[in-house]
Amino acid sequence: MTYCVGLLLNEGMVLLSDTRTNAGLDNIATYRKMFHFENPGERIITVLTAGSLSVTQTTIARLRDAIDSPDATPQTSVLLAPTMLAVAEIIGDVLAQVRRDIDEKLSMAQGASATMIVAGQRKGGGMRMFLIYPEGNFIEATEDTPFLQIGEHKYGKPILDRVVKPTTSLSDAQKAVLLSMDSTLRSNLSVGMPLDLCVVNRDEFRIDTLRRIEAGDESFRAMSDAWSHALRDGFSQISI
Amino acid sequence: MTYCVGLLLNEGMVLLSDTRTNAGLDNIATYRKMFHFENPGERIITVLTAGSLSVTQTTIARLRDAIDSPDATPQTSVLLAPTMLAVAEIIGDVLAQVRRDIDEKLSMAQGASATMIVAGQRKGGGMRMFLIYPEGNFIEATEDTPFLQIGEHKYGKPILDRVVKPTTSLSDAQKAVLLSMDSTLRSNLSVGMPLDLCVVNRDEFRIDTLRRIEAGDESFRAMSDAWSHALRDGFSQISI
Repeated sequence: MTYCVGLLLNEGMVLLSDTRTNAGLDNIATYRKMFHFENPGERIITVLTAGSLSVTQTTIARLRDAIDSPDATPQTSVLLAPTMLAVAEIIGDVLAQVRRDIDEKLSMAQGASATMIVAGQRKGGGMRMFLIYPEGNFIEATEDTPFLQIGEHKYGKPILDRVVKPTTSLSDAQKAVLLSMDSTLRSNLSVGMPLDLCVVNRDEFRIDTLRRIEAGDESFRAMSDAWSHALRDGFSQISI
Repeated sequence: MTYCVGLLLNEGMVLLSDTRTNAGLDNIATYRKMFHFENPGERIITVLTAGSLSVTQTTIARLRDAIDSPDATPQTSVLLAPTMLAVAEIIGDVLAQVRRDIDEKLSMAQGASATMIVAGQRKGGGMRMFLIYPEGNFIEATEDTPFLQIGEHKYGKPILDRVVKPTTSLSDAQKAVLLSMDSTLRSNLSVGMPLDLCVVNRDEFRIDTLRRIEAGDESFRAMSDAWSHALRDGFSQISI
């Protein structure tokens, strides 16, 4: 499985993904699940993927092919699309088409599928974040629900429900997604290090921070330990 | 859905269940999911249920019928069974049989099923806790994993993973299961108040505390608020 989360905030957006892929418990590998389509200063689009690796890799490859094609048009290339909504529609259509293509090769019982978070901003437009379903339809993050999750989302949801608001700072947002991931890593083996963290400031149309957090990362471990400590302290101080 | 959790500790056991049952989002009702079979001073057995209400109610009813039957034997009555292992086997067999009976009436696509936590102690034996699967087989809580969960278990697992050990006191254990439930209630609509909390001291073979926590319960709300406060405090003190 996978855990990916994206926060859409007043100051910008923060995205985090794990990298563990498995075909059965005895076939575990590391694959990047965060992809960027960038024209720095004009637009930045980040895609997080969960689900069948054959579906997500083929979808990303087709999106790149469409960008590089000499016949690229605003209807096919996410770097030419006129709005973020149009970007989400292109990606949704490609994802659904790839899924249909692969399903034809598989029996119905095995049907492969994937979900994606697509987030970004182009010059002249607002910053937007979408969750794209396997069928290609999508929902959007809003002020009321400023975060989207895909994959193993349940373990890490309580912390987000409690601390994330549109006014949350980008620094607190990074803390929140890392602690949300930390809870997931502790409780579910199918989600694993290293992690990819991306921060994009509003109206900059480029990646501000891109960080790969390896298994032995000292600062992540310190944060995880501090959080465990804070939880235990808080727990011991509560009376029933 | 449902969330039920049981902790098996050196001092005794603590069990907690919600009461929300739904047949679709527009058909929500309150049903007890915690049941006791008690011969005070000789044995106490508590059962927590998750899954199809038709399966769980029929299973509990058949277990009661078997106890009350004039033909009750150690092979059929959980109050006569020689060990807690035998109790788990009786309940697993009845659960699997009920499921088969109901499945015959339903199309395969709709198959009804249920899982249960069975916990207790009889005089002369140890305190034991089992998770019974829909097929009637089961696993047991151990020193390494002193808690079992059924239903919507993911939201409330991180806090248990962090604080529950066999040496945890019964007071802390109540706090842990209530906070685990609190996280679940906040993040998942299909789990709802009121709650049923049960505490059994080791080697007493009777219920020590049985408490129904209603939606407006002041002490539960105070604990929930204190926990939110502690989480936010802890969060704000961590640096990344």
